[in-house]
Amino acid sequence: MSNAYQRLCETFTRLARFSHLDAIAGWDMQTCMPSGGSAARTEALTELRILSHQILTDPHVGELLQQAQQEPLSDEQHASLREMARRYGHAVVLPESLVSAQALAGMHCEHAWREQRRNNDWQGFLKNFTEVVRLSREEAQIRAQASGLSRYDALLDRYEPGMTAARLDAIFAQVKQWLPSLLQQIIEKQRSQTLTESQGPFSVEQQRALGVDVMGLLGFDFNHGRLDVSAHPFCGGVPDDVRITTRYNEQDFLGALLGIIHETGHARYEQNLPRQWAGLPIAEARSTAIHESQSLLFEMQLARGTPFLNVLRPYVQKHFGDQNAFHGENFIRINHRVQPGFIRIDADEVSYPAHVILRYEIERALIEGEIEAGDIPEIWNKKMMDYLGLDTRGNYRDGCMQDIHWTDGAFGYFPTYTLGAMYAAQLFAAVRRCHPSLDENIAHGDLSLLFTWLRENIWQHGSRFDTDTLIRNATGETLNPEWFRRHIEQRYLS
Amino acid sequence: MSNAYQRLCETFTRLARFSHLDAIAGWDMQTCMPSGGSAARTEALTELRILSHQILTDPHVGELLQQAQQEPLSDEQHASLREMARRYGHAVVLPESLVSAQALAGMHCEHAWREQRRNNDWQGFLKNFTEVVRLSREEAQIRAQASGLSRYDALLDRYEPGMTAARLDAIFAQVKQWLPSLLQQIIEKQRSQTLTESQGPFSVEQQRALGVDVMGLLGFDFNHGRLDVSAHPFCGGVPDDVRITTRYNEQDFLGALLGIIHETGHARYEQNLPRQWAGLPIAEARSTAIHESQSLLFEMQLARGTPFLNVLRPYVQKHFGDQNAFHGENFIRINHRVQPGFIRIDADEVSYPAHVILRYEIERALIEGEIEAGDIPEIWNKKMMDYLGLDTRGNYRDGCMQDIHWTDGAFGYFPTYTLGAMYAAQLFAAVRRCHPSLDENIAHGDLSLLFTWLRENIWQHGSRFDTDTLIRNATGETLNPEWFRRHIEQRYLS
Ligand SMILES: [Zn+2]
Ligand SMILES: [Zn+2]
Repeated sequence: MSNAYQRLCETFTRLARFSHLDAIAGWDMQTCMPSGGSAARTEALTELRILSHQILTDPHVGELLQQAQQEPLSDEQHASLREMARRYGHAVVLPESLVSAQALAGMHCEHAWREQRRNNDWQGFLKNFTEVVRLSREEAQIRAQASGLSRYDALLDRYEPGMTAARLDAIFAQVKQWLPSLLQQIIEKQRSQTLTESQGPFSVEQQRALGVDVMGLLGFDFNHGRLDVSAHPFCGGVPDDVRITTRYNEQDFLGALLGIIHETGHARYEQNLPRQWAGLPIAEARSTAIHESQSLLFEMQLARGTPFLNVLRPYVQKHFGDQNAFHGENFIRINHRVQPGFIRIDADEVSYPAHVILRYEIERALIEGEIEAGDIPEIWNKKMMDYLGLDTRGNYRDGCMQDIHWTDGAFGYFPTYTLGAMYAAQLFAAVRRCHPSLDENIAHGDLSLLFTWLRENIWQHGSRFDTDTLIRNATGETLNPEWFRRHIEQRYLS
Repeated sequence: MSNAYQRLCETFTRLARFSHLDAIAGWDMQTCMPSGGSAARTEALTELRILSHQILTDPHVGELLQQAQQEPLSDEQHASLREMARRYGHAVVLPESLVSAQALAGMHCEHAWREQRRNNDWQGFLKNFTEVVRLSREEAQIRAQASGLSRYDALLDRYEPGMTAARLDAIFAQVKQWLPSLLQQIIEKQRSQTLTESQGPFSVEQQRALGVDVMGLLGFDFNHGRLDVSAHPFCGGVPDDVRITTRYNEQDFLGALLGIIHETGHARYEQNLPRQWAGLPIAEARSTAIHESQSLLFEMQLARGTPFLNVLRPYVQKHFGDQNAFHGENFIRINHRVQPGFIRIDADEVSYPAHVILRYEIERALIEGEIEAGDIPEIWNKKMMDYLGLDTRGNYRDGCMQDIHWTDGAFGYFPTYTLGAMYAAQLFAAVRRCHPSLDENIAHGDLSLLFTWLRENIWQHGSRFDTDTLIRNATGETLNPEWFRRHIEQRYLS
């Protein structure tokens, strides 16, 4: 009998339904909600999160988790139980008052930040942000005590189970060794290239139509999802109804288009998660880094590769007519341009890791109590100068205030971007080994080999396996950053 | 001390927060959600409604309501307590299993109906609808037993507290006496009028821009609301974030425009409900009929009146250029056209009551068990022939399948449309008595007298007073259908 396990399934299914409403109300907040709706929405979502926290951390759930361990379960059910226990363990250590204070402070800080960033208002932001940091430190302290991890590792574990600062340090130390010279070589090489820029304006309607076309090409299921606009693009909703967003710039269609392709990678993972376990934690995406590996595989590995760019070209021409910029090698070069800049989300894939490492170093020090929130601008400026040679003094808007992530206390999230880029490179190399004709197929617009491989090796597994097992099963080894380095060298220097 | 009352306030505030999420997820379902998201959304909303039902009907709430009666409360708090008790009483009689079965069956029937109506598929619809009727009869039976009301009155009370079929019968009997001959006279009079039709197409973008302009003129607060598109226009959301919808027809802009004005009437009521009681039942709209009185006051009393139409004219010309149709008396006549038709929501205000009375008579018989769902088409056809001289045989789509209301069991709702029209006429006449310069002010585009009067006499009171008291305070008498008759005569026959 597996009575306790069944009752856990009911509880987690109920939680998933509440989380569905959270996802839709959260999506609405970023895409539709008028500014004056913010206070009431924040209260409503906070109430729901408190409720979900109460349901999840009910002592009865703890007892059922114990009992279910003794029940005769299948391998899948054991994995499912492990993920339930993980979810429970993460939640039960936090007092409800902290959960509610964090939800309120986070939504408040994020909401005010939208205006403050526009106004370059660091002092205004610092006031709210200091409270967010204080609460996150409290959370880190509690999690560290409960798990035996360091404070930062304890936060990191929320996004990337099993990952540690020690492992990140080793990975990022390598990157910091080879990246600066690689970056210089690439910039040097590209300096001699002549480039014809595309000529705007590109109307929002046409950009959207192009985006929808390309989402179709990439297999996005519009019966279970949609495309909208938000200031900060994201992939939200639920597997049956995946909501991706972008933002349009009439002078540059490529930003929105590649953004849409990126979010479509997230969306296909969500749309292809295992339905047979729907509602249970095991049916959810493995981790934040694995999620990002799918979006970056779509955006960086697939879409910016020459075979796919040749497929993309006629779509662009269909919507924007024929321009010299879209011709031959020029169109490839536009998409391979490397140019260090202030803004992380606009960064090319070569300089991107510098943005992440900088944030990782700052947020770890912040959580470990080595620096204070007020110290951030100075450290930010110094590291931007060191890593990318850019001076951001006084420019908070395009400096330490540019990201949404810290506003609601998502410390431990940033490293997953670069982990995702590394996993993406490793996975794409594995698909190529498995299907030597991959690039040829892609060049003919046939993406089925790729999508079938991803479905079988990543998407359909949800959280069945831990990250290392999932990646080892798929690629023959655990995370190996060398694939990322090789990818950069081959694309930009060969 | 008022300890029990305070704790009730906390519970009802919590319920209002969940109802906020219900409202937004429900709005999304009708405006944004792709079809494939329906099953998961239905489950999520059902889970939330079960939860809210559990919280509201917790025996502890019953005890607190008893205790609070003994506490020293202000008049306002007494009224607030009365509304809490009313809410509790309505919910506590229903078993949770019925609430959940109704939510599921209703959402299922409504969802399928969208397709079935398009396909004129009465048999397909009947299957789902029979289950909805069965559950509503069960609900009516339970409510009747608990309240001592008749089965239909018990359902009616959900929308219009205190209203009964006996009172409705008396009102509608009067209407059935004078309406047919009045309708004939009006049609006869209008037969001799020549009318220049406006020439489409009117682009959706321009129609929307016109709608937004007019919403601004009518005082809609865009910082606390928005305008969208849905197949079946409605006003949803929450007072801090009111969501109205319309649907556009490129050949006829007036339908969408008057629809927007109608929903703006609903919206201003919501946006001006008393904030000092936010989260409590007393802060909500008095009843469905009073809500409809506000929308119909905006649409029928204000917007279709000659003074306002002269204000509206330049807005129309700004967006659609100059057409003969917009000139002089012709523009007034287009908006005063009376023409009985199949579709309730397209009906003019003179034939509208016939649509409502027909539905009222059918749904009452259905709930009282005098007829079965399968009998509806025949009765519908007969009554349409009797009341409006129209043959709807075989045309389910534009006949008994045209409305969304029955699909989720909202029996008792339809009569509130005509009650709303009557209240609107009575209220507008009262504003005119209070401000003899009203029409002159409106003709100059100054709507402040009207809005101030509505705010002071209706909006700010929420559910503080029962309907009869509210209307007596505002107009000097309780519901008097004569004002509606006088309005029709003056507008169409004078
Ligand atoms: Zn991403
Ligand atoms: Zn209405």
